[in-house]
Amino acid sequence: MDFYVSRVERFRSLLRSSGVDAALIIPGPNLRYFTGFRVEALERLLVLVIPAQSSELVLMVPMLEYERARALSIEGLSIVSYRDEEDPYKILVGELKDLGAEVVGVEGSMPFRTAGKLLGSSFRLTEVDDLIYGMRVIKDSYEVELLKRASRIDEEAIKEGFRNLKPGMTEKEVSRIVRERAEELGAEEVPFCIIQSGPNTALPHAESSSRRIEAGDVVLFDVGVRVEGYVADITRTVVLGEPKAEHVRIYNIVKEAQEKAISSVKPGLTAETIDRVARTVIEGSDYGEYFIHRTGHGLGLEVHEEPYIRAGNKLVLKEGMVFTVEPGIYLPGKFGVRIEDDIVVTKEGFEDLTKLTKNLTDIS
Amino acid sequence: MDFYVSRVERFRSLLRSSGVDAALIIPGPNLRYFTGFRVEALERLLVLVIPAQSSELVLMVPMLEYERARALSIEGLSIVSYRDEEDPYKILVGELKDLGAEVVGVEGSMPFRTAGKLLGSSFRLTEVDDLIYGMRVIKDSYEVELLKRASRIDEEAIKEGFRNLKPGMTEKEVSRIVRERAEELGAEEVPFCIIQSGPNTALPHAESSSRRIEAGDVVLFDVGVRVEGYVADITRTVVLGEPKAEHVRIYNIVKEAQEKAISSVKPGLTAETIDRVARTVIEGSDYGEYFIHRTGHGLGLEVHEEPYIRAGNKLVLKEGMVFTVEPGIYLPGKFGVRIEDDIVVTKEGFEDLTKLTKNLTDIS
Repeated sequence: MDFYVSRVERFRSLLRSSGVDAALIIPGPNLRYFTGFRVEALERLLVLVIPAQSSELVLMVPMLEYERARALSIEGLSIVSYRDEEDPYKILVGELKDLGAEVVGVEGSMPFRTAGKLLGSSFRLTEVDDLIYGMRVIKDSYEVELLKRASRIDEEAIKEGFRNLKPGMTEKEVSRIVRERAEELGAEEVPFCIIQSGPNTALPHAESSSRRIEAGDVVLFDVGVRVEGYVADITRTVVLGEPKAEHVRIYNIVKEAQEKAISSVKPGLTAETIDRVARTVIEGSDYGEYFIHRTGHGLGLEVHEEPYIRAGNKLVLKEGMVFTVEPGIYLPGKFGVRIEDDIVVTKEGFEDLTKLTKNLTDIS
Repeated sequence: MDFYVSRVERFRSLLRSSGVDAALIIPGPNLRYFTGFRVEALERLLVLVIPAQSSELVLMVPMLEYERARALSIEGLSIVSYRDEEDPYKILVGELKDLGAEVVGVEGSMPFRTAGKLLGSSFRLTEVDDLIYGMRVIKDSYEVELLKRASRIDEEAIKEGFRNLKPGMTEKEVSRIVRERAEELGAEEVPFCIIQSGPNTALPHAESSSRRIEAGDVVLFDVGVRVEGYVADITRTVVLGEPKAEHVRIYNIVKEAQEKAISSVKPGLTAETIDRVARTVIEGSDYGEYFIHRTGHGLGLEVHEEPYIRAGNKLVLKEGMVFTVEPGIYLPGKFGVRIEDDIVVTKEGFEDLTKLTKNLTDIS
């Protein structure tokens, strides 16, 4: 694919200006970003070598992965496979020496079992996460398209949960229905599918439990859906039946905080500004101490990545950044409310990828 | 728990005889092995410091994990928590310097983002995986008990799948039924739940697909169930309806290979010997080229660990080792058969943890 080649080219130029001779990419989101290769981290070494100077990429794989690696059609990519009786580190060191590499860029996630072998061969290792995340934080139109597809599935799956919600069901049962619907609709993965009810909603990010949902309960859906690597992350809070006055009051504060924060998004602001907007609304209603987490996090090939929408983050928002806006109020022992949309920064302002209704009682 | 303390004591003595001053353990199976702490690897540093000389353990955690860490009741364990605005690496380096540590043992899985910071502070890092795996490969009676509990759930879940098997169902639908039953019965996790049918069974370890199962199909169940960290791993192959003569012939060869390999297990033999027993049966029936994987792998806190039952592994079997025996024959485009039990090496021979029937047509 052309965009893989262009990503690698941009990365090469960053490597050159950082004085790095070659970078090594292991299985995970960065390998997928540069090659589209989706592969589990195995006991066996699998690594992409990106030289700063030459345009030839080398992907070293165990025999087991040879066929899948060969199916990648990326210009300039050559596959080097090794057998179980060979020492892959020796081959890798040879490749790097052939390139004349002295400074080798590695991911922060590279395990010591690999890094230690390279240090033993007198390369100097330097972490290049900042270079890669600096690229990944700006999504191109195809990446945004995938996030939209993931969002549509996420919304349909949550709606399926709404429609099936009945008193007496357990949180886990509802979670299964939502997950199955997302899978039916083509989700590559459902990395989390949290359904909480009643007092459980006051515990942000606990798991779905065996608690039976009762009439009048607050019910919270927080569901992640992955499509071609990219993850949508949506939360909705509803009441099953008649909401109490306190439900409505808290819900409206969170909704106002969320909508104001979203409306404030535009290029040039810092990430912490958006957090501040949401927090100001909630603090103004005297619930500040019950908003116990950051306002949001970036989305992409990982569920949590930059930009983190939190106090202290001076990162300047730019066109193409994508993140969640998800303020919440959690009243221990009573209930909690969180509302979460996925937002893209556009040239002039923002686009809200999440179209799902925000209505406390609309579960039909 | 007493056994955590005793594991740490044994590990300390190994550190001392290896000239390691302190070891660092990050979230994952080893942390669980030494403390029982089940925690996801986070962006934030979380690390257990095990000094070789002193019996005081230090667990460094982000604030977020403080309450959960405090709930661990392990003698000599102190919890050091840090706030988001503090630099945890500085604290860690301080702890290690207070201990007078020069040689620091780390896991092969320690990410470079952590290891690199320690190298920058002039510690010498050395991998201690062999020491830890040397301990973990021998299961004590409590670990075997957990594996038995996991096996019982695994078997009940597979039986639920058998009972529900009907022509027209998809592999994924059957997989869901099996997974839900395992969860109902108390599985902590179902790390995999592979159902394959018809020609798909010829592809070892592919995922459950949307293929509809037909009458007369070979159907393969390969299901992992985790209980308190420990994973059982069982495979059964059945035919839905009337088996063909070829099904029966291949099944009986695999069954004979598996049963002979199991019966041969006893302390003092090498891992490769067991592989050889299974392979000899299958080669003797002229299907050797269709048995395309190793005979088995160790089980414990990880799904794949030593002892690997494969050619070339000279590891000597000892009492307390646990591994799968799972030969298979895969006829491309036609069907495949694999049968997998979990085996403990005992003082005199072996115990088969898997009690589930091995009958090609018994799915009632």
